[in-house]
Amino acid sequence: MDLKELIVPNDSKIVFYIADGLGGLPHPDFEFKTELEYARTPNLDALAKKSVLGRTIPVRHGITPGSGPAHFGLFGYDPAFIEVGRGVLEALGVNFPLKKGDIAIRCNFATLDAEGKIQDRRAGRIPTEEAIPVLEKIKKAVGGRIEDVEVFVFPVKEYRFGVVLRGEGLSACIPDTDPQEVGVKPLEVKAECEEGKKTERILKKFVEIAHKAIKDEKRANGFLLRGISELPDLEPFPKKFKLRSLALANYPMYKGLARLVGMDTPEAGDKFDDLIKSLKEKWNEYDFFFIHYKWTDKAGEDGDFLKKVHYIEEFDSYLPEVLKLKPDVLVITGDHSTPALWKGHSWHPSPLLLYSKFAGADSAERFTERECKHGYLGMIYSFDLMPIVLANAGRLKKFGA
Amino acid sequence: MDLKELIVPNDSKIVFYIADGLGGLPHPDFEFKTELEYARTPNLDALAKKSVLGRTIPVRHGITPGSGPAHFGLFGYDPAFIEVGRGVLEALGVNFPLKKGDIAIRCNFATLDAEGKIQDRRAGRIPTEEAIPVLEKIKKAVGGRIEDVEVFVFPVKEYRFGVVLRGEGLSACIPDTDPQEVGVKPLEVKAECEEGKKTERILKKFVEIAHKAIKDEKRANGFLLRGISELPDLEPFPKKFKLRSLALANYPMYKGLARLVGMDTPEAGDKFDDLIKSLKEKWNEYDFFFIHYKWTDKAGEDGDFLKKVHYIEEFDSYLPEVLKLKPDVLVITGDHSTPALWKGHSWHPSPLLLYSKFAGADSAERFTERECKHGYLGMIYSFDLMPIVLANAGRLKKFGA
Repeated sequence: MDLKELIVPNDSKIVFYIADGLGGLPHPDFEFKTELEYARTPNLDALAKKSVLGRTIPVRHGITPGSGPAHFGLFGYDPAFIEVGRGVLEALGVNFPLKKGDIAIRCNFATLDAEGKIQDRRAGRIPTEEAIPVLEKIKKAVGGRIEDVEVFVFPVKEYRFGVVLRGEGLSACIPDTDPQEVGVKPLEVKAECEEGKKTERILKKFVEIAHKAIKDEKRANGFLLRGISELPDLEPFPKKFKLRSLALANYPMYKGLARLVGMDTPEAGDKFDDLIKSLKEKWNEYDFFFIHYKWTDKAGEDGDFLKKVHYIEEFDSYLPEVLKLKPDVLVITGDHSTPALWKGHSWHPSPLLLYSKFAGADSAERFTERECKHGYLGMIYSFDLMPIVLANAGRLKKFGA
Repeated sequence: MDLKELIVPNDSKIVFYIADGLGGLPHPDFEFKTELEYARTPNLDALAKKSVLGRTIPVRHGITPGSGPAHFGLFGYDPAFIEVGRGVLEALGVNFPLKKGDIAIRCNFATLDAEGKIQDRRAGRIPTEEAIPVLEKIKKAVGGRIEDVEVFVFPVKEYRFGVVLRGEGLSACIPDTDPQEVGVKPLEVKAECEEGKKTERILKKFVEIAHKAIKDEKRANGFLLRGISELPDLEPFPKKFKLRSLALANYPMYKGLARLVGMDTPEAGDKFDDLIKSLKEKWNEYDFFFIHYKWTDKAGEDGDFLKKVHYIEEFDSYLPEVLKLKPDVLVITGDHSTPALWKGHSWHPSPLLLYSKFAGADSAERFTERECKHGYLGMIYSFDLMPIVLANAGRLKKFGA
């Protein structure tokens, strides 16, 4: 069965209203309620009564996903089979406009001794403001190009920076030069495949030129290459599901992930309010809208139960704005759970709400983990959600006769 | 995604407290309650209130497993892809210390006529005590070795015995010599692959020597080779999940299965009490403990509802001893169901309880099939349990960034 052959576009509007890290755990300090149970969520609860609930497993049972795999799942790709290197993630994280075929590298500044041996693999964790002038020296020395390859150099945070190579015939089959220990020299740049020879040559030159340029620095007089990688080979979401697709997020990482699957990702502002405004403005131009609310995850990571409750209530308060647009299909879930009790991303299934006129028969009173447990949609893999959504949007033909 | 790459060992303790054949069915003679529902299980019920419930499918929907597949599932291997020959199972069943590369064969004594044709494929079902002296004759004639191959011969039960070949260059690609009918001669030993030639030669010699030694026996004057097999190629459990692993069981079969996946399996005694004692003694030496309670299954096989209820209550009564050790993660389930109503292993999902501080949000009052139906963990394959357990033990890193 080929899903794409079943897809028939129509005028329906689909909204994914996503609260990052939404799912939680019963907390002993708060009546053994979860964050969603403890929160006052009149809008989510009212919607739950006319929707169906369920739960999503982001990757596989027991697997705690990073943001990348968690979002790929929601976007309808099986994240267990997608590898995204650290170099690519770092570039996406700072909103670098990566293109297909680019080689992205995450670099750590390091301190080398007189013999070129590593004294400190993180150059004393120098702050970003100390790293930037050193990077400027590297940029100047490299001049943006080695042979016919464009070379981009950009700061990330503290001792970390990014390098992107853009040109013909490049390959990412090159392991880290970080030996993971001090007292030895950085490893040689060495391609592990025939197609990587050119990249090896360019990177060797880059290392040589850049090291020469910063050799007199006290702390950041060297660097290590890590996570050399390129964009995964994914069929773009708008093509895969035949949807004109818009992603609205405040944080670069999520825009980056949406861009990676080919969604339009405008700069929509720093506040969630800005995203809701964009949603209204762009309503007629797209079929699929992905709106990302970040703060629930942050509060969960901090282990701050009440802050997460607060942000869930804020997330709830914006829901009427979305409903006013009358989406045909509305999905509310998290990319993964981030229970305040666990203080981090977790493996627990995400509570899921699906609204459409044809969603199913359910009996929920509220939108909570315990109600979702009994939900009509059951427990599904995140990547199984998109076909259900397309079906509810009337965008899937019958399979077979 | 490679699970092993995500595993980070820590000091947590994991216990699998397993009642063989635990799951049951509503019985018309007992208020249409299941064995678990009918039993008084104060300890299981108290624990259920602070745990999450669910159900495990041992192999696939509708599939009734033998003990082998059922245990492989619990051990985190997909049993649908593991084949264990009868020869291996028979050797494991009598606690023979099989090694990688050994060829294990299950043999049936048979009665041959003057022309060497089979008169009785089971030698009149001779009792074990009659088989043993005949086996002694075989052992003496063979002398423990053929060419450079060690040959072990041991009784199993009644007309059945086991043979194990140990040496270099052996292969199990040899079909049974049992023609499955009388009035014909046993089939020739014949390898079906090139690597089996040596094994064919050794087994032919074995058959010749052994038959000569017992030719004057009245009933057991011949035998048939069946289930010629070797250990499946499984990554050992302690390596696969990075857990120092101890299996405690009273019956050889379960020790054998645990040994097959590389767990330590001491002789812990004949009573369940002995296992609990061993658990306490070995608590500091291991990370993972598998404790096997056999009697629930036996009563289910006998179709004795009240006896199974009794043994469930006994299983329940030992639980406080386990809880005193304060395991970080505790799993209580069966390897498969054995409803008294069905009088045998069955395909029904097993009731599942998972205790950990981070297990999830549930609302059970008791540990029963009907409560497990609504459980937070949903219905999962047995082999999906181990990743959930590792996650709850804090032994899994995030997948992707």
